[in-house]
Amino acid sequence: MAREPSKKRSREIVDAAARMFHERGYADTSVQDVAHAVGILKGSLYYYIDSKDDLLFRVLEDVHEDARHLLDDVAAMDAPPLERLAAYVRGHVEFNLRNLSKVAVYYHDFALLDPGRREVIIAQRQLYEELVIGLIADAQEAGEVDAGLDAHVAAYSALGMVNWVYTWYRPAGGRRASELAELIAEIVVGGLRAAHR
Amino acid sequence: MAREPSKKRSREIVDAAARMFHERGYADTSVQDVAHAVGILKGSLYYYIDSKDDLLFRVLEDVHEDARHLLDDVAAMDAPPLERLAAYVRGHVEFNLRNLSKVAVYYHDFALLDPGRREVIIAQRQLYEELVIGLIADAQEAGEVDAGLDAHVAAYSALGMVNWVYTWYRPAGGRRASELAELIAEIVVGGLRAAHR
Repeated sequence: MAREPSKKRSREIVDAAARMFHERGYADTSVQDVAHAVGILKGSLYYYIDSKDDLLFRVLEDVHEDARHLLDDVAAMDAPPLERLAAYVRGHVEFNLRNLSKVAVYYHDFALLDPGRREVIIAQRQLYEELVIGLIADAQEAGEVDAGLDAHVAAYSALGMVNWVYTWYRPAGGRRASELAELIAEIVVGGLRAAHR
Repeated sequence: MAREPSKKRSREIVDAAARMFHERGYADTSVQDVAHAVGILKGSLYYYIDSKDDLLFRVLEDVHEDARHLLDDVAAMDAPPLERLAAYVRGHVEFNLRNLSKVAVYYHDFALLDPGRREVIIAQRQLYEELVIGLIADAQEAGEVDAGLDAHVAAYSALGMVNWVYTWYRPAGGRRASELAELIAEIVVGGLRAAHR
């Protein structure tokens, strides 16, 4: 009787891969290294993934999956658009701070993916970005944000502030993730309210 | 009589290297490729640089040099701190948009530098970041920004919005660089004015 790959083990593998790709670099990490880190044989690892490229793909998909859950939660909120945007920014900054390795690998190694898998990630990312652009467009319709602003530029700028944290945040720095997320949400939302064409 | 390496040629070499590192990746670009792109012999290229690592270093230094000129100009402005910050954001976004390859290489390949050269870049970057943090601290002292905000987090967030543009801007997209820079400056400054502890 075939067994389903355990979800817990699968998660351990993706987490270990993200950590190693981040610390050593993708090129300098082998499937064997990841198997060793998780404490299983290389042959067993191929029960979960079919190649190193597949491992990278799983890391990137993981980032999207969590981001999508967050955006679904935000879409279901009964609140004005900018309040939903603030909740999204807080949630996404906190996610990024808890997943520094995965997020760094996401942005650094995306271009290394095989073209087919890269297309899948690009399509997911576009869907995701459209949701953020949609939140800003809703805020414009509700009169919370100047209707003359370019919602795409505003959305990408907000995403920049949110995503950049992986480049500078050091967990040992002492700042609490929730405080930091709150401050970034205030800057984004306050900036969008204030900007005029 | 020894001749000084021509500045124009030196600039062509750095520009070609940035473009090729960005398009093909650092690992897949050789010193020979860069020499070929500029139309000189590999031996002549070593008159300007001493290794591929040195080429990468020149690309990154170039980014800092321009950013430092910009910050010097801003520091010399006779205007309130947030107005100076807005001028800095506009200038830096426009610089990033005009130098997409160099900026992408700066963030993507920094970690590949030899440790010694990496230290030099880190020191330059810290100096640069301190100047942005200083602008925000000045704005706090002048009462333009809540004194309770963490000036470091605010500065890194502003830098995130400014630097992220290289990941999403496409010159063919039709948006004018100056309009885009103006909108991002408004979001940053408006956000800092609005944020409270």
